[in-house]
Amino acid sequence: MKKNTPPLLETLVPKAKFWFELDGELILGRGGALLLRGIDEYGSISQAVKSLPEDELGEMESPSYRFAWGYLRKVEERLGAPIVEKRRGYREGSGGTALTELGQQLLKLYEKYEEKLKDLLTQK
Amino acid sequence: MKKNTPPLLETLVPKAKFWFELDGELILGRGGALLLRGIDEYGSISQAVKSLPEDELGEMESPSYRFAWGYLRKVEERLGAPIVEKRRGYREGSGGTALTELGQQLLKLYEKYEEKLKDLLTQK
Repeated sequence: MKKNTPPLLETLVPKAKFWFELDGELILGRGGALLLRGIDEYGSISQAVKSLPEDELGEMESPSYRFAWGYLRKVEERLGAPIVEKRRGYREGSGGTALTELGQQLLKLYEKYEEKLKDLLTQK
Repeated sequence: MKKNTPPLLETLVPKAKFWFELDGELILGRGGALLLRGIDEYGSISQAVKSLPEDELGEMESPSYRFAWGYLRKVEERLGAPIVEKRRGYREGSGGTALTELGQQLLKLYEKYEEKLKDLLTQK
């Protein structure tokens, strides 16, 4: 992509941000995708929140359980369908949160675009 | 890209923002690219500023000559080379602004990435 580009411009770093919208409203950006990935990995919203890298919070403005919970509710409201669900734990009284089938597909779709975008930014 | 995607997720609109950085500092985003395109077209910073669409100002926070001028100076300072230059006009005392060779190449490079990004966002 950088054929015949002056040397100075070859040192530029291409950057991009990616997100999904529905009817003009945010559905999922990088912060939300990392949250879903964390929930899928740890089976817990609070663990997922703790795993969020501070410099990539994006629309997950605050790395707190409270914010994450409100964020997920808003996304589900906009989609009109649940993306997370409660799961019974191994021990009595314990439990966690998992992605629904829709939540998993949403995350997968986001990661597909993210992968393509990464390719675009790194190709010469 | 959307093979086997649930119908609900097919309605999502993929969106992206693209920009160039150098040493962690912003060099050119969509607003700046539109400004450069306008200067190339109209041969005038103030005409270019007037042509900027209000909803796509991006890093061109204010659509004013003053802001545009300061913005261009900052980009040139960060690049260490001029991207615009004064041009003598047809009539005595008149004049305008044009892109330097580097400015043209920078705009061209931005537009190449923008085109690829558009393809990525519209492919199914």
